[in-house]
Amino acid sequence: MENSWATFGRDLHLDLTGPGGLRAALLRALRDAVRSGRLAPGTRLPSSRSLAADLGIARNTVADAYAELIAEGWLSARQGSGTRVAERVLPRATPTARRAPGPSDAARAVGPAGRADRPRFALTPGTPDVSAFPRTAWLAAARRALATAPSEAFGYNTSHGRPELRTVLADYLARARGVRADPDRIVICAGFMQGLALLSRVLGTGRLAVESYGLDFHRAVITRAGLRTVALPVDERGARTDELTALDDVRAALLTPAHQFPTGVPLHPDRRAAAINWARATGGFILEDDYDGEFRYDRKPVGALQGLDPDHVVYLGTASKSLAPALRLAWMVLPERLVDPVLALKSTGEWQSGALDQLTLAEFLSSGAYDRHLRGMRLRYRRRRDQLVAALADHAPQVRVSGIAAGLHAVLELPPGTEQAILRAARRQGLALDGLSRYHDPTAPPASRDALVVAYGTPPDHSFAGAVDALLKALPSGELPSGE
Amino acid sequence: MENSWATFGRDLHLDLTGPGGLRAALLRALRDAVRSGRLAPGTRLPSSRSLAADLGIARNTVADAYAELIAEGWLSARQGSGTRVAERVLPRATPTARRAPGPSDAARAVGPAGRADRPRFALTPGTPDVSAFPRTAWLAAARRALATAPSEAFGYNTSHGRPELRTVLADYLARARGVRADPDRIVICAGFMQGLALLSRVLGTGRLAVESYGLDFHRAVITRAGLRTVALPVDERGARTDELTALDDVRAALLTPAHQFPTGVPLHPDRRAAAINWARATGGFILEDDYDGEFRYDRKPVGALQGLDPDHVVYLGTASKSLAPALRLAWMVLPERLVDPVLALKSTGEWQSGALDQLTLAEFLSSGAYDRHLRGMRLRYRRRRDQLVAALADHAPQVRVSGIAAGLHAVLELPPGTEQAILRAARRQGLALDGLSRYHDPTAPPASRDALVVAYGTPPDHSFAGAVDALLKALPSGELPSGE
Repeated sequence: MENSWATFGRDLHLDLTGPGGLRAALLRALRDAVRSGRLAPGTRLPSSRSLAADLGIARNTVADAYAELIAEGWLSARQGSGTRVAERVLPRATPTARRAPGPSDAARAVGPAGRADRPRFALTPGTPDVSAFPRTAWLAAARRALATAPSEAFGYNTSHGRPELRTVLADYLARARGVRADPDRIVICAGFMQGLALLSRVLGTGRLAVESYGLDFHRAVITRAGLRTVALPVDERGARTDELTALDDVRAALLTPAHQFPTGVPLHPDRRAAAINWARATGGFILEDDYDGEFRYDRKPVGALQGLDPDHVVYLGTASKSLAPALRLAWMVLPERLVDPVLALKSTGEWQSGALDQLTLAEFLSSGAYDRHLRGMRLRYRRRRDQLVAALADHAPQVRVSGIAAGLHAVLELPPGTEQAILRAARRQGLALDGLSRYHDPTAPPASRDALVVAYGTPPDHSFAGAVDALLKALPSGELPSGE
Repeated sequence: MENSWATFGRDLHLDLTGPGGLRAALLRALRDAVRSGRLAPGTRLPSSRSLAADLGIARNTVADAYAELIAEGWLSARQGSGTRVAERVLPRATPTARRAPGPSDAARAVGPAGRADRPRFALTPGTPDVSAFPRTAWLAAARRALATAPSEAFGYNTSHGRPELRTVLADYLARARGVRADPDRIVICAGFMQGLALLSRVLGTGRLAVESYGLDFHRAVITRAGLRTVALPVDERGARTDELTALDDVRAALLTPAHQFPTGVPLHPDRRAAAINWARATGGFILEDDYDGEFRYDRKPVGALQGLDPDHVVYLGTASKSLAPALRLAWMVLPERLVDPVLALKSTGEWQSGALDQLTLAEFLSSGAYDRHLRGMRLRYRRRRDQLVAALADHAPQVRVSGIAAGLHAVLELPPGTEQAILRAARRQGLALDGLSRYHDPTAPPASRDALVVAYGTPPDHSFAGAVDALLKALPSGELPSGE
């Protein structure tokens, strides 16, 4: 059987000769082959090693592509039967992993019909400017943490998370986000996704409401835990939480109240109240994803929804946007009745986080280094946002920009039907860029909104101007219908 | 319903007035109540907060006790229905979490009828001497790692683990443990338990053979993944791998070849061959838990079983014994056909490890600091072992000591029927100590072997002599039947 794979690449019309983006080309070719039916459901794929050997590329490239396609639902893998085309391909699968800009992002910049050129610039969301990680201040905090840690901290730690970190986080979250946090109700986890997975498993069965614009890998975590998702429409006031009462069997709603991802609007006070009222009336929970609540510029701070009702709102925060995704440190502030079930599940031994980074983050917070870092990053991101808005006003005045009062990305509204063409134009400029449509839940009613999600927080400083130039070139200046 | 819990403590005859060990007393009382039927299956327990308030103790104490009892299978928890007595209590449930010696170990030193005095000393296995963590050398490695890391390392990392670490680990494992390791086939995980959970889930269904003496929380990880366990007897040549061929539906066997845990014998060459032959004949896997293979003293190094057949053996190593459990860093070297399925499962976003500690460990290894640390710890542990053996020869010559050629613990053989009495005597000496029987798989045929598992690696240096004294006082010098 292995021999038949020698022609696998040619059969799929793989073009891996471009100046870069081997992985992107491979992803595209495999998705195309599944979509077109050339690779039928259940078909066994060659091992990553043999396909890599056949194609003369690195094995990691193939393995990463397989892993991504499995995560997206195109392929499935089970020991003993190898990697196969999934029996039921999801309605609309898109790349899932949030990752740093770089070669791997080529995959995201290339559509089924696009060229696989490696992008020179990326304005795709998910990752902050990791070149600004405060290495020196972090090391200083690590030194203090290592010098003062009790010996027991180096042993097996509880699943709750280090008490030093939970204590300073409780103070910080109260001060900075209006969270009513008791250290006992904080649970440290290895990233937001792990927290969402724990919560989904504890909730068990039924439905979990999500925003109709959001991240497919969040929805995937929820459904893998055995829940079904149901989409709440998103409008200019945020998610339609007023529709929650009309839905049955909903255990919880996952919301981004401070800065809806990706549309960028804050949840309107009426909608906040509707969410809380629904939770109180039904005993449900609001899962508040406060992914970038610490980055706000013009508007009055929007406090966490959790402050309104700590017994019905789970607050989820993360160091992934404020410091670095690589830390894999996030925190949940739980309603009382969720603490024991979450700790019980988390203490089964598979969901652990290292203690040294937790102790370092505690030092980083208590020394004021975290506040200093955030102030610096707010200035940096705000300057970029202003540069982006000014450049658009000069060169593409017909494009309306929204969602810019906070966070690390803006939404550029486009005339209907133009999103895909502009994404293709961006690709030709070497710019990795996402359209709003890729964040639309395919199970929600179709949305006709064309827009770009422009993550001005992502590039390192030295390439930001180049990225904006590439974006401007991709936008058809003055040619757009003047519908706006 | 909450009010009825006001008398909960009194109903369970909780005696929480001792000089320490509140958590231990609570654990004992709850286990007793379930065992005796005073708490019937399905009974709902009060929330940790209300019970803590009723008892006037810290809420964490109650929450930790609940979490431990849930992990052990005494209780179950599900959001919405609270914490309840499990419907089917396991045949023989024992404390599960490996943890550092300290107050929490009181639970392990106290039997259903014992006193809950907080032990002054601990010789319980699982944790190395964490007071010897090389803080200065680790910080130096962190400094180099932070100074040289590429920016992308601070972004979202792949589930494979940092390439810097996988590369140096491949060299190290080949040199130190005879592992045939390609960096592509190494996957970093957050501890051995996570690796075992990933492998169990990938294997999917069927049975996984375990050693009849081993850790209950390992067996629990396997069964939670949907596999059943089947116990292989352990004798003076290690696990009876020659019995594997007589078992059907076995997908893999979890073994500790270098130093059987806890009996301490290395797997005999015939048994090594039998294991490999079984795997080759059936397409099964050996999961090689090399938890302390780096600590050897008198005997010729026993190379990893994996070196014999990297296509049928999964090698699992960890920094938990060699450095510190708190790092939550372990590694698997996988057969080719397991790489893609494991990466696919691990890339779903819930199983992540921080990248900075990975980069630091890579520096720690490549700079030679890891070898230096191991040499120092080997000397320290060997000295302790020699002290223990000499003290036993002087004061309890009738006790046969085994399993001491390697590792961090010794096995002290006892006359039949004396184990529990000696454990009680140890408790009276303020010594936390484990009998061999608590490691016996309750689903295996009953074992009549009485012995102590004495972890001389656990205490800090300053308390080792006191711990050995307490042990000697617990052993009835000269009174034992001279059967040995």
